[in-house]
Amino acid sequence: MELLFLGTGSGVPSKERNVSAIALKLLHEINSIWLFDCGEATQHQILHTSIKPRKINKIFITHLHGDHIFGIPGLLSSRSFQGGDDLLTIYGPLGIKKYIETSLDISGTHLTYPISIVEIEEGKLFSDDNFTVYCQKLEHGLPSYGFRIEEKDKPGELLVEKLLAKGIKPGPLYQQIKENDYVVTSDGEQIMRKDFIGPNKPGRIISILGDTRSTEKNSTFVKNSDLLVHEATFDHDKSDLAKKYYHSTTTQAALLAKESSIKELVLTHISSRFQQDDSYKLLQEAQDIFPNTHIASDFYERKIARSE
Amino acid sequence: MELLFLGTGSGVPSKERNVSAIALKLLHEINSIWLFDCGEATQHQILHTSIKPRKINKIFITHLHGDHIFGIPGLLSSRSFQGGDDLLTIYGPLGIKKYIETSLDISGTHLTYPISIVEIEEGKLFSDDNFTVYCQKLEHGLPSYGFRIEEKDKPGELLVEKLLAKGIKPGPLYQQIKENDYVVTSDGEQIMRKDFIGPNKPGRIISILGDTRSTEKNSTFVKNSDLLVHEATFDHDKSDLAKKYYHSTTTQAALLAKESSIKELVLTHISSRFQQDDSYKLLQEAQDIFPNTHIASDFYERKIARSE
Repeated sequence: MELLFLGTGSGVPSKERNVSAIALKLLHEINSIWLFDCGEATQHQILHTSIKPRKINKIFITHLHGDHIFGIPGLLSSRSFQGGDDLLTIYGPLGIKKYIETSLDISGTHLTYPISIVEIEEGKLFSDDNFTVYCQKLEHGLPSYGFRIEEKDKPGELLVEKLLAKGIKPGPLYQQIKENDYVVTSDGEQIMRKDFIGPNKPGRIISILGDTRSTEKNSTFVKNSDLLVHEATFDHDKSDLAKKYYHSTTTQAALLAKESSIKELVLTHISSRFQQDDSYKLLQEAQDIFPNTHIASDFYERKIARSE
Repeated sequence: MELLFLGTGSGVPSKERNVSAIALKLLHEINSIWLFDCGEATQHQILHTSIKPRKINKIFITHLHGDHIFGIPGLLSSRSFQGGDDLLTIYGPLGIKKYIETSLDISGTHLTYPISIVEIEEGKLFSDDNFTVYCQKLEHGLPSYGFRIEEKDKPGELLVEKLLAKGIKPGPLYQQIKENDYVVTSDGEQIMRKDFIGPNKPGRIISILGDTRSTEKNSTFVKNSDLLVHEATFDHDKSDLAKKYYHSTTTQAALLAKESSIKELVLTHISSRFQQDDSYKLLQEAQDIFPNTHIASDFYERKIARSE
């Protein structure tokens, strides 16, 4: 489970930072990739990574500003060229369906795979065997959402030492013990799974927020995340501008992380007014409050470790 | 007057070739730049050139396929950020207005400058002091147009030797002679402009065709162009595929140039099936028929010389 930042700029692309897109690579978990936002030229950025567009089966759109959506029609179209057959589901605010359908219709784009477009409201988006995804409205100039991805807990490891001590040797029986509440051995003995399996491995939690003003209600939503992705369009002393334009500062993002028992914070959506050299200052401002902060740059990748 | 190729690929972007866009730089002539097609990430390509988006005041769209239009909303939006105030006029097939308006509306994009969207039909698009632009339908899977840009003839140079021989010395009078049918000197002598000015400098003609099957009727339209930009999606021996998919081969483009008294041919819209090394073969196929052929690559620039 890795986050790969494809575009970390704000508003307009620059040579250093493309507009917004983040790939959540779930290749080991479910052999899929989920995309969060899809600014113009996201498919071009993908050309410089190992991501195969056909592996992308969910796209989550935080809000409808152009720097977050103008790459969708091109990516959908290229996914056809590149042999995508599987259903692609797109979650986004009211209006996303009209935008996508109009773009595909007018350009005469016929996709080789089915798409489902879900216009979201606050609450649980879906829950399957592996993940539950929630979304919540943030404070922005137009409806903007945050996504909280909760991985389900996984059963613990077999306690091999304990099995061996009981005289049960490795073999197909181990898998049966792992998969069933209890197993009866050829000797007629009942082996209870709960006695031979370690504690559950807790699922990871990732929160990815779209553009947002700093607001307390975001804290409950991101609580206890292993990783929080937060915008930092402005530096510390621009909180007035941040409020005016419905954005956040480095400090505000760090305070949220601190107050919400986050393990790790990654800042993105960095304004093009900041040059490469300014990154250190931005990072410092956030780390003064929340030390485990990183600043994303295009193609920055972050592995999300499982809590011990 | 230069053509700068911003995207020379076909269908999907690759690392080597972006999707379609060509800038016609008219900086010396009218301090403007015109864009022909605007595939996704055209604004990103522009970041690597000296083009200022606010200088682009006309965009011509050949047809509505995604690889020719998906860069429009982002470019319009960024032109606002970069201080564009002047009217931008967009010419394109029926549907272009709905595409642009829906994209801007749903993304909440408010432009800082006025735009005018003209849905085109065959014939003269406009004529001003400097240029006349015509368009004609080609043969493609959906309505696709070619544009013929005719620069107006410019008056010839003053025949200075002849004026000096007549005893007329350089001064403000020279400008008056150039600008008026006749001028009466302080000695009461009538100087006729036509007697002291060289032959008209003929305007240049550029034809830029959108995606098209090879068809004879294109010949009349591009006749006598100083430069013809033509697609070459397929190589010589794929004329069956070219016909099937409404595209052209290298050979077909070269034959058109030969039959139409073109001075120079530039091939573009090169399929990503061709690698860099294949370019020589494609070029050779065309040059065998029409020697003054070039193959465009991204950022290839071509000055259009005035005929002598």
